[in-house]
Amino acid sequence: MSRFILCLLMLSGVVTSLQADDNRQRSRDLGIAPGVLQPGKLNAITDVPGVLVGQFSLIEGTDIRTGVTAILPHGGNLYQHKVPAGLYVANGYGKLSGISQIRELGELETPILLTNTLSVPQAMEAVIGWTLKQPGNEQVVSVNAVVGETNDSGLNDIRKRAVKAEHALKAILSARAGPVEEGAVGAGTGTIAFGWKGGIGTGSRLLPEKLGGFTVGVLVQSNYGGILQMDGLPVGKTLGQYYLKGALDSDKADGSIMIVVATDAPLSDRNLTRLAKRAVAGLARTGSSFTNGSGDYVISFSTAESVRRTPERRSEVSTIAELPNGLMSPLFQAAIEATEEAIYNSMLMATDTRGVRSATGQASQVKALPLEAVKQMAEQPVSY
Amino acid sequence: MSRFILCLLMLSGVVTSLQADDNRQRSRDLGIAPGVLQPGKLNAITDVPGVLVGQFSLIEGTDIRTGVTAILPHGGNLYQHKVPAGLYVANGYGKLSGISQIRELGELETPILLTNTLSVPQAMEAVIGWTLKQPGNEQVVSVNAVVGETNDSGLNDIRKRAVKAEHALKAILSARAGPVEEGAVGAGTGTIAFGWKGGIGTGSRLLPEKLGGFTVGVLVQSNYGGILQMDGLPVGKTLGQYYLKGALDSDKADGSIMIVVATDAPLSDRNLTRLAKRAVAGLARTGSSFTNGSGDYVISFSTAESVRRTPERRSEVSTIAELPNGLMSPLFQAAIEATEEAIYNSMLMATDTRGVRSATGQASQVKALPLEAVKQMAEQPVSY
Amino acid sequence: MSRFILCLLMLSGVVTSLQADDNRQRSRDLGIAPGVLQPGKLNAITDVPGVLVGQFSLIEGTDIRTGVTAILPHGGNLYQHKVPAGLYVANGYGKLSGISQIRELGELETPILLTNTLSVPQAMEAVIGWTLKQPGNEQVVSVNAVVGETNDSGLNDIRKRAVKAEHALKAILSARAGPVEEGAVGAGTGTIAFGWKGGIGTGSRLLPEKLGGFTVGVLVQSNYGGILQMDGLPVGKTLGQYYLKGALDSDKADGSIMIVVATDAPLSDRNLTRLAKRAVAGLARTGSSFTNGSGDYVISFSTAESVRRTPERRSEVSTIAELPNGLMSPLFQAAIEATEEAIYNSMLMATDTRGVRSATGQASQVKALPLEAVKQMAEQPVSY
Amino acid sequence: MSRFILCLLMLSGVVTSLQADDNRQRSRDLGIAPGVLQPGKLNAITDVPGVLVGQFSLIEGTDIRTGVTAILPHGGNLYQHKVPAGLYVANGYGKLSGISQIRELGELETPILLTNTLSVPQAMEAVIGWTLKQPGNEQVVSVNAVVGETNDSGLNDIRKRAVKAEHALKAILSARAGPVEEGAVGAGTGTIAFGWKGGIGTGSRLLPEKLGGFTVGVLVQSNYGGILQMDGLPVGKTLGQYYLKGALDSDKADGSIMIVVATDAPLSDRNLTRLAKRAVAGLARTGSSFTNGSGDYVISFSTAESVRRTPERRSEVSTIAELPNGLMSPLFQAAIEATEEAIYNSMLMATDTRGVRSATGQASQVKALPLEAVKQMAEQPVSY
Repeated sequence: MSRFILCLLMLSGVVTSLQADDNRQRSRDLGIAPGVLQPGKLNAITDVPGVLVGQFSLIEGTDIRTGVTAILPHGGNLYQHKVPAGLYVANGYGKLSGISQIRELGELETPILLTNTLSVPQAMEAVIGWTLKQPGNEQVVSVNAVVGETNDSGLNDIRKRAVKAEHALKAILSARAGPVEEGAVGAGTGTIAFGWKGGIGTGSRLLPEKLGGFTVGVLVQSNYGGILQMDGLPVGKTLGQYYLKGALDSDKADGSIMIVVATDAPLSDRNLTRLAKRAVAGLARTGSSFTNGSGDYVISFSTAESVRRTPERRSEVSTIAELPNGLMSPLFQAAIEATEEAIYNSMLMATDTRGVRSATGQASQVKALPLEAVKQMAEQPVSY
Repeated sequence: MSRFILCLLMLSGVVTSLQADDNRQRSRDLGIAPGVLQPGKLNAITDVPGVLVGQFSLIEGTDIRTGVTAILPHGGNLYQHKVPAGLYVANGYGKLSGISQIRELGELETPILLTNTLSVPQAMEAVIGWTLKQPGNEQVVSVNAVVGETNDSGLNDIRKRAVKAEHALKAILSARAGPVEEGAVGAGTGTIAFGWKGGIGTGSRLLPEKLGGFTVGVLVQSNYGGILQMDGLPVGKTLGQYYLKGALDSDKADGSIMIVVATDAPLSDRNLTRLAKRAVAGLARTGSSFTNGSGDYVISFSTAESVRRTPERRSEVSTIAELPNGLMSPLFQAAIEATEEAIYNSMLMATDTRGVRSATGQASQVKALPLEAVKQMAEQPVSY
Repeated sequence: MSRFILCLLMLSGVVTSLQADDNRQRSRDLGIAPGVLQPGKLNAITDVPGVLVGQFSLIEGTDIRTGVTAILPHGGNLYQHKVPAGLYVANGYGKLSGISQIRELGELETPILLTNTLSVPQAMEAVIGWTLKQPGNEQVVSVNAVVGETNDSGLNDIRKRAVKAEHALKAILSARAGPVEEGAVGAGTGTIAFGWKGGIGTGSRLLPEKLGGFTVGVLVQSNYGGILQMDGLPVGKTLGQYYLKGALDSDKADGSIMIVVATDAPLSDRNLTRLAKRAVAGLARTGSSFTNGSGDYVISFSTAESVRRTPERRSEVSTIAELPNGLMSPLFQAAIEATEEAIYNSMLMATDTRGVRSATGQASQVKALPLEAVKQMAEQPVSY
Repeated sequence: MSRFILCLLMLSGVVTSLQADDNRQRSRDLGIAPGVLQPGKLNAITDVPGVLVGQFSLIEGTDIRTGVTAILPHGGNLYQHKVPAGLYVANGYGKLSGISQIRELGELETPILLTNTLSVPQAMEAVIGWTLKQPGNEQVVSVNAVVGETNDSGLNDIRKRAVKAEHALKAILSARAGPVEEGAVGAGTGTIAFGWKGGIGTGSRLLPEKLGGFTVGVLVQSNYGGILQMDGLPVGKTLGQYYLKGALDSDKADGSIMIVVATDAPLSDRNLTRLAKRAVAGLARTGSSFTNGSGDYVISFSTAESVRRTPERRSEVSTIAELPNGLMSPLFQAAIEATEEAIYNSMLMATDTRGVRSATGQASQVKALPLEAVKQMAEQPVSY
């Protein structure tokens, strides 16, 4: 249905471009390939076997540019077969729900949903309703809904709270393996990063066999600011758009980012929390200023069967197989790299977007990061 | 309306007693007066000047026994005139929303709402909607809704998610100073503590002038278990009802407690967090077993004008007057005592309640703590 | 040697009593048996198989009343065979070393030493030196020494820093299984609790087989204040000695407590941290006021082979057998009870002690808790 | 004395170069000037008025290459005139002492000392001794010594524990304002970063008047690894030396970094902790892999008089002037930039160093980062 609405809007000229813009390219295709490790097959969070992603874009009239993105650790009953999970808050000016239970129990029992700041309750309602209805959950009376957000009020009339539980449910129900749509889609429909269009992006790293052969996949909802640097290229400075350029408005770079990290490495919740922290290093490398108003969160989980919290494992002393502390380092490097690349993808795949500024009701337009300029910088010959 | 429904239910015999039961008595009236400090005038959180409490009880048919309790730090525009706040999670098996922003910024910008576990989203929706509509908030695009909960599924068919945003809004709108209704009311309508009826309770302490003359007020939503002890009296053991009595069901004592601590002492957010931690000592003194399934949370705030985060103070280097670390100790003792007494009040003022067990749909009945037995223990003559 | 010095001092009349006073009694022998679970054989931390305790009391002249207590999770090479560990800081006005590494890696690689506030470096030096010299540690270049403390300056001229690394080493080397000396001994030689003599105390709980059959053992160094209550008996009020009695000196109750919790239950570091938190509930039940100046810390560890971090387990994906979250609750109750009783033992076994007040250099004397008075209260007939 | 020994060693050829090598250059002089803000006059932590730095290098024989660096927030009695302070642990595999008290009270009462991993106790001893002897501290019986470390065992026979309290005291006593010696000096004498010689480095940023005019200064002790990138230049990859190059040794990049952040902005301890977190973003931008074995810590403090915890302010409700949350962002950017540059300085000013590998006792040599190669990369003409 959202595609249908989009078509109508495109025909009517309200929406002039789509994240599926054929001219947009992923970071690696432009020669921007941060780090030293190789990506997985799709260079996406779905390279981690079992992980599903669903998205719903809500684009209505001239003022609603928002949506929901759902990440499911696996396709089974998540409540009964919980996954170990970690959490890290880099800057907590945000509304992520479910924080304390993830930390206390070290596990995730629902999909992770991303949406806009004021629609967290509606997304939680969908997660709770969906969980209660899953076969096998007939006696469930407690659900820890995990919903993150960033504030898309620069393009979306967020005060209208257009996202309803039914929209969030569609994101969950549409979740699937395979390639992940990036850019101005789902929870990234109306987000802004570094003054350009932000959105959903993904990336992954596959460790060599001798380092364990594990995959780390990352998905981001980018909506923050700073001084954009792409694998070292001074994009923000070169294009003349960056935080503190005018040194006048101290909060210009505000915004947020939600980061989800998945891995098939068999990790304890403690080591998943450590892994989550590393994603923030990837964020830092893009030039984030980590401003006061930013809500920068990472949720991580392991899909490994050997650490999954099945009904059996939750009812008695259970045998699990875990990776020890001493073998974590390559996974840390993988999380840094995959996050950095996922962020670049979120911007490079995003497209020009028109909407309204919610606080004022005035029309606004945000340009996509100019691909040619970035390409030129990436292809610059250097002699070293 | 809820009162009307209640009347009908009482007439029809579905509900046989009310928290306003004339025979129920507060802890102090029974001679159970924990600690060494004196309570404030009302022995309630509303002894802290400016604090308002509103409650809505939702009692429908034979299976809905739930509600909402709202605590407002002051009656003005909370979003524009934020209060410094602290937070402590004793055991995080719960769904309290708004955690990370309170911690990051050290402040509260909305009422605190308490409700049941699965109705947190609806209460958040009410808080967000109410905040957006407050005069002066026309440009607000971000709201950190703080909603706590405990699980009343032992008496309330929680899976029906009967609480709607409109009910939560009624709790906010009905908030007022003065005495606070206790027992099976508001968010405490369907809760259970130590196997007896729990509910809403409140208490306060007023420091002598030479210790600052400040007030500490506490409100609790009790729904947990353990081995009940009332200011040292072995009530649970004596009445033969306590955790591990049969040593069979390790999770029998599960449940949760939400604790809200208010003070007019001019405290930093850090010292408010420390104050919040002390409330848990009061909880421990009642015999809580702090079981795995319990969600035990404390939110604290200061109403002092000298630390209030007004629009002016939030926009420039501002002068504030704070209590130093070295003067905190009497406030800590006050928080311990007021919490302990608030919990006793929540049980002593609660009344027998019938409802259903949500997981099974079967009828359930929970007795109030027998007043006579407690009275007898409290009045026991001792020669020391 | 310390025993020798003690003998000399006793003969010379400098020291007039010893913790080994035949007239002192443990809590349970007086009828004060908190909780509902049964203690282990010794009612000591050493009921947990493998745990060793060593103590060195340093009593010199009229002004040195201090010492060191060492707790070893097992008698093997702790560095090579690390144990999972947790940590909780109730109030952090203290100098416990090693905090961040325990939290990051979830493990302990050395003995835990307790001493006085200003002698932490000397005890750390001993731990590092001892570890470097253990066979098998020839290539070790990093040691996380874990040393806790409380401030015994009310009886000990702490500014003289009389404890040297050699004294701390003696505590480690004397560690053994079996009964633990309590009262004014080791790190408790000069401590004060609730205005009476504090010291070292220990206690344990043994879970019934159907709850797992695990043991939880606790050792404390008590040096704090508040309003003493012993399993509900209002000892402090009755004897007229308690915090805020005169309502004049807000910091009168200051001090600290170090708590060590051992268990043979196979726990993850996360669940060990949760277990550590419960010990604070036991502390709260004794009437602690948790004042500003208190340093209240808990370190916990598991001795279970199935979670021990052996060289093999630290070098590859390893199989471990852990207790799930859902079976933690009885252990939580055990930690609460064992801590409460360990604290009572620390006071009941302590003896009158003379020394000096370090800040002023003046002579001071601290009385032991009067046994007869406590006995009378415990034996008070009640009809309920 | 250390200078004298150094001279002898240089004459004898044991030490062939010094950090004062005339050929070494600071980052900015090579054209590597990260960020968009301007540095202070010295581009050093001592640009923050009042901050003093002292260093002692301990170089003996062929195997001792270590030392101590001391940072004093001001030259007065630090214990009586405490400064608000924050703390952040990025990866806690380290031994920083004093953590819990900084967090609990939000303040620093001693100098901050940096040294090697196994010499923390000796440095603590010096801090305690020095504090007890300061005029006005005659009644002090509690001192929270804050000593950080990194592991210099790649060049220094750390197991010998050559640093004594007297050496640490020399670092404190030599503290002064003005330029800070960088490279292989003080606590950086034997450290290694990215496989090249690391050491002590410093940097600063001065905010424009319209952003407050505050200074942020940073000092680092670099000893960690990853994939070196200098303001975006791929130095590690270009020179063929980086973590996971051979994908064989997962812990090759281990090590640690201690970061100290000073500012004259009047910040609360909470905002100082937030500022500390930002330093880690600067660290991330250098290419740190944040490996398992790294101890990455940041301590931050404010020198502003308006927030200083003087005896008066610590004894009654006191007026302080603080910067609100909403004005923090430019300071955050400043901390990121100053940290990044301080790290580059630590490497660029360091010099080739010979010593021994402590674990094996074998001779080792670590080269300084080759200046010419870096210069060439920094001066590479680009057309964008």
